[in-house]
Amino acid sequence: MDTEALAGRITAGDRRALARAITLVESRRPDHRADAAALLDRLAGTGREALRLGLSGAPGVGKSTFIEAFGMMLTERGLRVAVLAVDPSSSRSGGSILGDKTRMERLARAPGAFIRPSPSQTHLGGVAQRTREAVALCEAAGFDLVLIETVGVGQSETVVAELSDVFVLLLAPGGGDELQGVKRGIMEAADVILINKADGAMREAAMRTRSDYAGALRLLRRRPQDPDDFPKALCVSAAEESGLTEAWAEITALAEWRREHGHWQARRAAQARHWFEEAVREGLLARLTADPDTRARLETLGAQVEAGRASPAAAAARALALLEPAPPGAEDG
Amino acid sequence: MDTEALAGRITAGDRRALARAITLVESRRPDHRADAAALLDRLAGTGREALRLGLSGAPGVGKSTFIEAFGMMLTERGLRVAVLAVDPSSSRSGGSILGDKTRMERLARAPGAFIRPSPSQTHLGGVAQRTREAVALCEAAGFDLVLIETVGVGQSETVVAELSDVFVLLLAPGGGDELQGVKRGIMEAADVILINKADGAMREAAMRTRSDYAGALRLLRRRPQDPDDFPKALCVSAAEESGLTEAWAEITALAEWRREHGHWQARRAAQARHWFEEAVREGLLARLTADPDTRARLETLGAQVEAGRASPAAAAARALALLEPAPPGAEDG
Repeated sequence: MDTEALAGRITAGDRRALARAITLVESRRPDHRADAAALLDRLAGTGREALRLGLSGAPGVGKSTFIEAFGMMLTERGLRVAVLAVDPSSSRSGGSILGDKTRMERLARAPGAFIRPSPSQTHLGGVAQRTREAVALCEAAGFDLVLIETVGVGQSETVVAELSDVFVLLLAPGGGDELQGVKRGIMEAADVILINKADGAMREAAMRTRSDYAGALRLLRRRPQDPDDFPKALCVSAAEESGLTEAWAEITALAEWRREHGHWQARRAAQARHWFEEAVREGLLARLTADPDTRARLETLGAQVEAGRASPAAAAARALALLEPAPPGAEDG
Repeated sequence: MDTEALAGRITAGDRRALARAITLVESRRPDHRADAAALLDRLAGTGREALRLGLSGAPGVGKSTFIEAFGMMLTERGLRVAVLAVDPSSSRSGGSILGDKTRMERLARAPGAFIRPSPSQTHLGGVAQRTREAVALCEAAGFDLVLIETVGVGQSETVVAELSDVFVLLLAPGGGDELQGVKRGIMEAADVILINKADGAMREAAMRTRSDYAGALRLLRRRPQDPDDFPKALCVSAAEESGLTEAWAEITALAEWRREHGHWQARRAAQARHWFEEAVREGLLARLTADPDTRARLETLGAQVEAGRASPAAAAARALALLEPAPPGAEDG
């Protein structure tokens, strides 16, 4: 594949080239992976940078409506907005957040917007790596904002937080009950908590929920990457399109503060380093498990460890021995 | 080394053998690592199981006083209590939580208690692995409770949570202000939050703090491994030795519930599997970086990734090429 030509079309803002490139990075075929790596390497130097905005919200909080209203407001301001999804469940029918673009009809038609359905992969690690690469492609294509959303299946919020400059948690009023409760680890990752549906009969409940979360956030230690008054909890209404400009103002203010104080670049560098080391570790493990016999033996060792019949350290030593260029049987020691 | 003899003395309850074995697992010398792996493997089959209780609390919350009072109460009930510390900072003078046993004089002298200062290692991964192995040794030695404490430097709380059956967070009254605020990720890991110093003039403040955290915990989604009313926040006073029996009752009730519902074994199996895979990945990476030239090249690649001059995927591909039995220069492609 002529990755140079494709890179040129992407940087020129060609949507179809971008879509094709994302399909490329989502592919697991070895030759596709090689092309993807070459393409990403070529695009790494563009220096284009978008605000990577992570957004998590459980089904029912009005995420699609929010993204559409929020995205429309931004595109109407002349900003170019890309929307990607991290959803390990999307291979299951109905699981996909964005598979049905008709849920965001207006935004899908907006000239400044690009909506990409979630890749239908179940392996979260794969989804994470591919999404990170799709984000890089969107940045090279010149988008101002890359919104990465997740429905929060499994560890997907953690992945999205790892991909974002700013992480937003969208909640519905009544977040205190178990059904709406925040999954552990998410409140810790949130930079901004938005209580949606703060309209009509729900307004009061939304304001109570907001103050509940504001109180909980005050119990958390201030992070170095936050100005004094962050994380924040705000009320919004996607339906009434109220609170959206305020939310955007807070998000950009936080992003600006982090830029000025060096946290932005530090975070991006740490994230890139993290993904690099992750990829190396996974690659080494994939090599270890390429051979079916080795894989089977490794699985046996893992099972022994789980059952408490072998210590992790001893089992790991044996697993590593499987890789050694040692005489046959050496790994059985 | 005769690991079989050492294993025998440990299972017989020989303290000096246990101390020596812990020193062995803390050593980084390759031959010591091999002996440690053999010893742990030998002891993996004893089937002895202690309650692994993780305890985190920042300096100033009265952790040592609490552990002493709590440990004395338990040893007076005939329980055998081992106390281990995870403190990556302990190599720095004064950083050690337990380096000075005089801070727990009574407990250190109690016949049923075993106190082990934190290993003076700065590499947290190493500390985690060694601590996990020390816990296994204490279990094989027949302790009923292994209390793993941390001052919460870096990611040490996460490590301790990964090592524990039940994780307790110790706080001082007034947890709302920044100095006392809970580090992110800890509230989510906590099974029981204890507000210490609920005595004298602080009693009122402790009760307010308790209800603040109880409120915050209600905002978190119920975890499968929790009965309805957990996580809990309670008041205790190590100084007045009040609330300790109640805290112990809650901890054992939770542990019992998890045993009955299969979460206990599932968590231990997952933890063991996690450490096994972690050890394999680290071992592979260590092998990759054993050669100084390779290490230098890998470092260069990592720096390029951090600087955004190379994509993580492409850099990882090059890093993996360094391991290939390929013609010289192949990895420069």
